[in-house]
Amino acid sequence: MKYAFNTWVYSSFPCWVPSYSIDETIKRLSKIGYDGIEIGCAAPHAWPYYLDENRRKEIKELLDKEGIAASSLLPAPGGGPGANPASSIKEEREWTVQHYKDVVDLAVDLGASTVLYVAGWRMFGVSQEDAWKYSLDSLIQIGEHAKEKGVTICVEPTSSDSNLIETADDALLLMEQSGLPNVKVMFDTFHVLYRNEVPSDYIYTMGEHLKHIHLSDYDRLAPGQGGMDFYPVIQALKDIGYDGYVTMEVGFNARSAHPDSIAKAALDHLKAIENELE
Amino acid sequence: MKYAFNTWVYSSFPCWVPSYSIDETIKRLSKIGYDGIEIGCAAPHAWPYYLDENRRKEIKELLDKEGIAASSLLPAPGGGPGANPASSIKEEREWTVQHYKDVVDLAVDLGASTVLYVAGWRMFGVSQEDAWKYSLDSLIQIGEHAKEKGVTICVEPTSSDSNLIETADDALLLMEQSGLPNVKVMFDTFHVLYRNEVPSDYIYTMGEHLKHIHLSDYDRLAPGQGGMDFYPVIQALKDIGYDGYVTMEVGFNARSAHPDSIAKAALDHLKAIENELE
Amino acid sequence: MKYAFNTWVYSSFPCWVPSYSIDETIKRLSKIGYDGIEIGCAAPHAWPYYLDENRRKEIKELLDKEGIAASSLLPAPGGGPGANPASSIKEEREWTVQHYKDVVDLAVDLGASTVLYVAGWRMFGVSQEDAWKYSLDSLIQIGEHAKEKGVTICVEPTSSDSNLIETADDALLLMEQSGLPNVKVMFDTFHVLYRNEVPSDYIYTMGEHLKHIHLSDYDRLAPGQGGMDFYPVIQALKDIGYDGYVTMEVGFNARSAHPDSIAKAALDHLKAIENELE
Amino acid sequence: MKYAFNTWVYSSFPCWVPSYSIDETIKRLSKIGYDGIEIGCAAPHAWPYYLDENRRKEIKELLDKEGIAASSLLPAPGGGPGANPASSIKEEREWTVQHYKDVVDLAVDLGASTVLYVAGWRMFGVSQEDAWKYSLDSLIQIGEHAKEKGVTICVEPTSSDSNLIETADDALLLMEQSGLPNVKVMFDTFHVLYRNEVPSDYIYTMGEHLKHIHLSDYDRLAPGQGGMDFYPVIQALKDIGYDGYVTMEVGFNARSAHPDSIAKAALDHLKAIENELE
Repeated sequence: MKYAFNTWVYSSFPCWVPSYSIDETIKRLSKIGYDGIEIGCAAPHAWPYYLDENRRKEIKELLDKEGIAASSLLPAPGGGPGANPASSIKEEREWTVQHYKDVVDLAVDLGASTVLYVAGWRMFGVSQEDAWKYSLDSLIQIGEHAKEKGVTICVEPTSSDSNLIETADDALLLMEQSGLPNVKVMFDTFHVLYRNEVPSDYIYTMGEHLKHIHLSDYDRLAPGQGGMDFYPVIQALKDIGYDGYVTMEVGFNARSAHPDSIAKAALDHLKAIENELE
Repeated sequence: MKYAFNTWVYSSFPCWVPSYSIDETIKRLSKIGYDGIEIGCAAPHAWPYYLDENRRKEIKELLDKEGIAASSLLPAPGGGPGANPASSIKEEREWTVQHYKDVVDLAVDLGASTVLYVAGWRMFGVSQEDAWKYSLDSLIQIGEHAKEKGVTICVEPTSSDSNLIETADDALLLMEQSGLPNVKVMFDTFHVLYRNEVPSDYIYTMGEHLKHIHLSDYDRLAPGQGGMDFYPVIQALKDIGYDGYVTMEVGFNARSAHPDSIAKAALDHLKAIENELE
Repeated sequence: MKYAFNTWVYSSFPCWVPSYSIDETIKRLSKIGYDGIEIGCAAPHAWPYYLDENRRKEIKELLDKEGIAASSLLPAPGGGPGANPASSIKEEREWTVQHYKDVVDLAVDLGASTVLYVAGWRMFGVSQEDAWKYSLDSLIQIGEHAKEKGVTICVEPTSSDSNLIETADDALLLMEQSGLPNVKVMFDTFHVLYRNEVPSDYIYTMGEHLKHIHLSDYDRLAPGQGGMDFYPVIQALKDIGYDGYVTMEVGFNARSAHPDSIAKAALDHLKAIENELE
Repeated sequence: MKYAFNTWVYSSFPCWVPSYSIDETIKRLSKIGYDGIEIGCAAPHAWPYYLDENRRKEIKELLDKEGIAASSLLPAPGGGPGANPASSIKEEREWTVQHYKDVVDLAVDLGASTVLYVAGWRMFGVSQEDAWKYSLDSLIQIGEHAKEKGVTICVEPTSSDSNLIETADDALLLMEQSGLPNVKVMFDTFHVLYRNEVPSDYIYTMGEHLKHIHLSDYDRLAPGQGGMDFYPVIQALKDIGYDGYVTMEVGFNARSAHPDSIAKAALDHLKAIENELE
């Protein structure tokens, strides 16, 4: 298995502190032993519009030097410009599509071949059908740009935070309707737990279309610290021959988080399970 | 007392749902009985760059029709562009200053004369002195623009979320150093409770410089639902002759919030206290 | 407002005890002051196949004598025959359709003009699309039979227990696709709370199509005993001119429930709110 | 020891989801390492009336292929037809007796030689004597049919859910009064814990008549996850020379259950105890 760690807990989203520069974060995750880093596209790490050509090169060189890959990139929805591709506000949808394209370009510059797609949510009064259409239309525009750049877009069900793409089936259907070969799916165990569903079932259901995965225990704790059993998840990933990054997205919901601690605990726990299953 | 209600719990920041359009939110808060509405400058309510001249007029007309005033505006820090005026990233500081100026202009268009200033936070490795200098420099640029437009900037200590301006004294010092007559101070009871300090003490300390206030019970509950005693706060506001809006900033930390319920409960509770004190 | 009470907590579903005969239950709810009784179609109350013509007449006469109306009927899904209209097992779907028709006939015999439709759920491996098709097909067969009998079928989103029709939008879409004028929608505040959504929003969204409603506080407690604020719900029902029964479906999840206590507390709480709003 | 696992947590009783087909459930339990599977006779697994001759053969062949035995069958009381053999409703008792006979026949078809008998419960107003008589009469009819088919009926005290057969002594007395050699007893540690009694005491008390056992930790958790000590239970089973299946009946009370996880954890825990005692 290749392991990656999402940067939110080291960044200012959604908790402003503690935060660390992207350079510091890369060095720490490399030292802890991760193979990859999933980079959140928000200040202070990777808001695309603050990173000129030189800065992008610097970051890429640091990644290479530290022997850790940029595994994937994702936006930070929910504040400021919103970044809701299903918004009923036309200006927001247009900005969001352009932003995702800029994230795709940044991914290419940093050597990442995967960008996550958070399909958005509905305001009161907007129908499920309209929101779905808006999101699908946004996805197609983003996906076509990504296809030219050799980047895979992974649709993520985010039931805990939204009301549009909530399940494996929702994500697979949106993927299918996009009609694009580089649009695939992913999921986050945290959102599956929110729905009181079974995480390993999502792996078998998504099967060959599963190109990315977020692991989190209950309450965004590191795997092993919240009571969820990750054996069936690792077993299922082996069963389907998953070859993407196993990525932790944890700890970012609490100012009191100790990022290095969480990153190390998660990696240790999953490697122990992997060893036991071999 | 004039009562206002902050829009976050009706918006997509920081919880994406439930959310309501700015028009729906104005109508609901007016119906519940608020005098003012504090508008968060994030999608889907009031991201300045999605609101053209016509849309601003529409919103202003709706406010007038519903008999509720735009009491104040504020940005949504922490995601995407960051909006941290104390950032060590030059591009972020520049964007943030410009963004605050745009928020000031939007305030003017909507009839509000107050904009809140969240002074920012420090990443690991940035000194308190440097961050303070960055924030002060940003504040002066923003304040000068606001002065021309007749808008007051209120510095808010945000101890619960940040590590720069944490106390009444910090806010007063930054205000003083700005040297601008339209830079004043405010505070939020929630942040005072986070520091285990006494909210009414902040009122006497800030005195004539106190131009805005956020009320919240413990855990961002509506006043009256979390156990804090708001009598001393209302008494202190009367004592100093406070004539600004008493603004609720509550409920936005939980997806499970019922916005109308919270807005009504908060207003009922404070009016009851006010009546009792008369 | 007309108030009704669902019989589960007086029956053997899902907790076997305490249980009371249907006759005893009718007398108790009438005495407490309810206008209507929602009858669950399971033993020992109203399993249609245990109630011959005479027994149905007896129950109807008792209802008349006690001055309480049979407001609605519903099946008891989840055990024995399943009663899942979205089942991938053909035998189960066929039985379920026939069962709903028999429930409709029983409703007519007892003087009720509303039957609730629980749209079912998906097993692992069954796609959302297939399950939706199965449920829609079942609904059309049931709805056509009900139309002949003058009975309204109300589609209920049951997010807390299932994975098919979870939201107001899901229910409205299924209703629309049925193409039948006597197929309408309803919702249960308990399921809305499970989704961390806002109950009163469901009322405005469903509007004229809302023909039934279940009230329950958090954890299936009686309204007023669990912390939810029912003011906005009663206000919204008034706003849309709702003229159906306001039905409590509470307490049935715990053997320790005291049915009369719960029934009285719920009625008292809602009447108090109604009086206050007048 | 031979270990078996009850299918409720994989089925739609009492929680509708998650659920898995009987085929999927057989494969999973076999892979986890169980010797036997206890099959609940409810949709979607084994409602007898949905399983024709062919389907029964298919299931039997799958069991053989997967190397796992149908250890026992049981009905799902409490909804729809009730299945309460002590009901004061004659139609319900008659249906229940017939249903048990059909379950016995299904057991034979699937190769199981044990059927569990849940002796029922009393509605308000029905005396203990009458209910006992009803249940005994039902049991005799069922037991005689089972005797012809070579099936053992095990009477289970179910104190947590009912009010008729609550203790080891109740079960032994009903057994004795049946006068049938193929009527025996069993118990479930969960129900014993509900009465604050000592599970291993039930083993010594039931002794040679103990032909089946359900293990569950507190709160229907897997043995090892709820705090009960299972050493004395395993020791007592060895002491009396128990040669039936040690069957887990766990996890089915919560939608949030992860069935494979629970099944594996229970088996691991008990095998570890067994190894230690050898």
